[in-house]
Amino acid sequence: MIYLVVFAVESFIKKDFSFMNTEHFHTIVIGAGSGGMTVAIGLAGLGKQVALIESNHVGGDCTNVGCVPSKTLIHLAREFKPGDNPDEVLREVIRKRDALRDKETHEVRETKNVTFIQGLAKFNTAKELEVALKDGGIRKITADNIVIATGARPRLLDIPGLPSEMVLTNESLFDLRDAPKHLVIVGAGVIALEMAFAFQKIGTKVTMFALDRRPLTTSIPEASEAIQAELAKRGITLHLGTVAKACDVSTQSLILQSGEEEIVLRDVDKVLVAVGRIRNLEKLDLEKAGVKVDHRQGILVNSYGETNVKGVYAIGDVTPTSAFTHSANAQGRRVVQRIAFPYLPIAKNEPLFPNATFSDPEVAAVGLTEQQLKEYCHPGVIKRIRVDFKTHTDRGYTDGIENGFIIVDAVRLTGRILSVTIIGPRASEMISFFTLAISQKISLYKIYRLVFPYPTYSSGILKVADFFMRETLTNLKGELAAYLKYRFAKPA
Amino acid sequence: MIYLVVFAVESFIKKDFSFMNTEHFHTIVIGAGSGGMTVAIGLAGLGKQVALIESNHVGGDCTNVGCVPSKTLIHLAREFKPGDNPDEVLREVIRKRDALRDKETHEVRETKNVTFIQGLAKFNTAKELEVALKDGGIRKITADNIVIATGARPRLLDIPGLPSEMVLTNESLFDLRDAPKHLVIVGAGVIALEMAFAFQKIGTKVTMFALDRRPLTTSIPEASEAIQAELAKRGITLHLGTVAKACDVSTQSLILQSGEEEIVLRDVDKVLVAVGRIRNLEKLDLEKAGVKVDHRQGILVNSYGETNVKGVYAIGDVTPTSAFTHSANAQGRRVVQRIAFPYLPIAKNEPLFPNATFSDPEVAAVGLTEQQLKEYCHPGVIKRIRVDFKTHTDRGYTDGIENGFIIVDAVRLTGRILSVTIIGPRASEMISFFTLAISQKISLYKIYRLVFPYPTYSSGILKVADFFMRETLTNLKGELAAYLKYRFAKPA
Repeated sequence: MIYLVVFAVESFIKKDFSFMNTEHFHTIVIGAGSGGMTVAIGLAGLGKQVALIESNHVGGDCTNVGCVPSKTLIHLAREFKPGDNPDEVLREVIRKRDALRDKETHEVRETKNVTFIQGLAKFNTAKELEVALKDGGIRKITADNIVIATGARPRLLDIPGLPSEMVLTNESLFDLRDAPKHLVIVGAGVIALEMAFAFQKIGTKVTMFALDRRPLTTSIPEASEAIQAELAKRGITLHLGTVAKACDVSTQSLILQSGEEEIVLRDVDKVLVAVGRIRNLEKLDLEKAGVKVDHRQGILVNSYGETNVKGVYAIGDVTPTSAFTHSANAQGRRVVQRIAFPYLPIAKNEPLFPNATFSDPEVAAVGLTEQQLKEYCHPGVIKRIRVDFKTHTDRGYTDGIENGFIIVDAVRLTGRILSVTIIGPRASEMISFFTLAISQKISLYKIYRLVFPYPTYSSGILKVADFFMRETLTNLKGELAAYLKYRFAKPA
Repeated sequence: MIYLVVFAVESFIKKDFSFMNTEHFHTIVIGAGSGGMTVAIGLAGLGKQVALIESNHVGGDCTNVGCVPSKTLIHLAREFKPGDNPDEVLREVIRKRDALRDKETHEVRETKNVTFIQGLAKFNTAKELEVALKDGGIRKITADNIVIATGARPRLLDIPGLPSEMVLTNESLFDLRDAPKHLVIVGAGVIALEMAFAFQKIGTKVTMFALDRRPLTTSIPEASEAIQAELAKRGITLHLGTVAKACDVSTQSLILQSGEEEIVLRDVDKVLVAVGRIRNLEKLDLEKAGVKVDHRQGILVNSYGETNVKGVYAIGDVTPTSAFTHSANAQGRRVVQRIAFPYLPIAKNEPLFPNATFSDPEVAAVGLTEQQLKEYCHPGVIKRIRVDFKTHTDRGYTDGIENGFIIVDAVRLTGRILSVTIIGPRASEMISFFTLAISQKISLYKIYRLVFPYPTYSSGILKVADFFMRETLTNLKGELAAYLKYRFAKPA
């Protein structure tokens, strides 16, 4: 008993001292993007005193320069009709973005238990930060927990002769008030593809080039093939294995190099650089807190978002996890649970992170990546089922789908689903069916018994189960033999 | 042993005799629509000799006058741009429908083990049919199993003065080569709504009227409200509680009666009657087979599709089950399993039948109907969660969704999902997530742990789980008390 009293008094004194020197919070969150907001609002809602620090706009990439403006543009581009004004589309994107930003900023400032601080934070110790306030001055604050959620920024590219006013990144793209006549996009990843399809729809000529040998390298090659076919169908040229050599401003030409070949793109207005992202870590003085950083993977965290330093957490783009808003949110939710209810059980593994690219058609995937499949399973134990919307579903027929499919990699015989990729007009909505199925270990046998509304794209999911059943039941002996042979074999 | 031999010989003799009189099949399927084709092709694939009888086109309603042409029209209407030719849209619908019809007809004729017979069948006994062949003549056939899959046809309406050339049903609608200027639709159910939104998009003026007090009476009232708002937004007038009194051809006017009020619709080209369907049973001479028919529900069957007469099955629209292509398919699959593998276990209950209306926005639902909810549960044990896309999801914001939601009725405290209705642009694809969740008894607690791609409509599903968790955890005592009080209470 006496120990408890001593402990309480000591704690009180410690806290008291810290209050005298600096402001003390239960938790400080650095970065008011999706992940940071999830943590700040989550903990504040549980009655914890939270400081939320942001050097730029509330809402982070997602609201300001990411999902929100890009999906608004994609939506408006889809509705774009001949005769519509493309500049008006871009201005509507800005209006909607600004309205949401204002709303979120207002909400954060009004949230009970959240102290919003506008400024740039750096560590003094693992418990203390120094914030260079936007309005001038320095503010020192301490906390029991500090959550790093500073996100990332676009990587830039040095193209000789290219004037900065011609260069766009996702950070400047959505301030554009006039649609470019000819937009060149560097890169062939998620952002590059989403913007290529959207700008093409509002009448901009789009040319892409990338060093990669295929677009969307994070997906399976079949997805890259389908996307390449769709780009070609829409008249979007994509030069692969290609780098920029120089820009000639006088003629508005961009000179590219593809192997031996020189390619000249003419009448280029704007160049959107979408070649990857850099974590915002340099200004944090992480070494003062002793937080370990891997120069390739960012801040290393366990599945609860804990760094190597007790009380310091990291979530979102600064960590090695997939750089999606929903990943940052999910990590944020886990950190809230960990900080607020440290003794409550929490699933040891991170949840399954699906991903989605809002190109046209959309690409979505969940489960093991190609690399993980290779590492974890012998190829002999995997059965790949492919259902093409065009030939295997009536909806693909009525809607004239040319490039679209569901590809499922499952364990032979057992029908356990390992990995799914969907390309189609509604892939981003369909993928959650499989997130549920994989996380709840629901096999293709059980899916075979479900009824899907007709005629939907999702009825292709039933076809996957059909094909699996047919191939398994008509060759039961072979499937059993392969399963037994390869189930515990080393990955090839 | 001796018994077996006798039995075999007897069987052989019996079969032999039957062969002498008439042709004998393992199974006869009456009706080559979705359900009938599922059974015929399914059994034929298992090596059974099947006779498939059809009096009209192969493919049934779905291919010829239902889902396929209607979804083609809906797709083309969505892509319709100012300046496009609406007649060209209707002709493209006809082309695609005919191509699929030809393909399916060819496939059926070529399917091994399927004898395709074009003609009208009626029962002589429970084992023998007489088919009035299309090319003339009578053909008698017998079978161990007979499957009735004759479907339904549109109910007609007698409007005084309305000439038959102005009347359309779903059976004649997709032979239309010129878009009507002013289409009046009688009814406010699935077909009526789908066609109203589609024809409005290709520039036809659409007016609807119905006796019902709300559109889509098979859905929850919130869905009717949303659909009414969307109809109004698009300038489609819907007169509820209204009947037709007469048509004046000289002025192309339709006179309606709504309570005391008389409404006159002018310059009407065509009247689409979509006020329900009549089962195709009269010509079957079912009484000769002894098959029981309920005058309101059709042929009564158990969950395996078995009628009161051994060896006679019924599936699809002729049964009381929901009149959807996917329901007929699912019933067909179960009948195949029952006939081909009578001793294999088969789930006792019919699977969950989701439903979808391809209006704009789409409406989809799965689980207990409002009526079933009332019958099975005390209202005090149900927690209703409503997530509006507009206010609760970023995607609803970027895409400017005004009327769209997910409504989930779940059991208090346990989070078991009973019923789901979704209205939104992709509701028909999203609903399968819940078909899986309900059929696998996955609670909202488990869904709370999933990650959904951002920004999708499906992330609204996570919001449903969020809201449920928050309302439950912040009022645990109250929820527990309500659960204990009402869980085993009689439905109110």
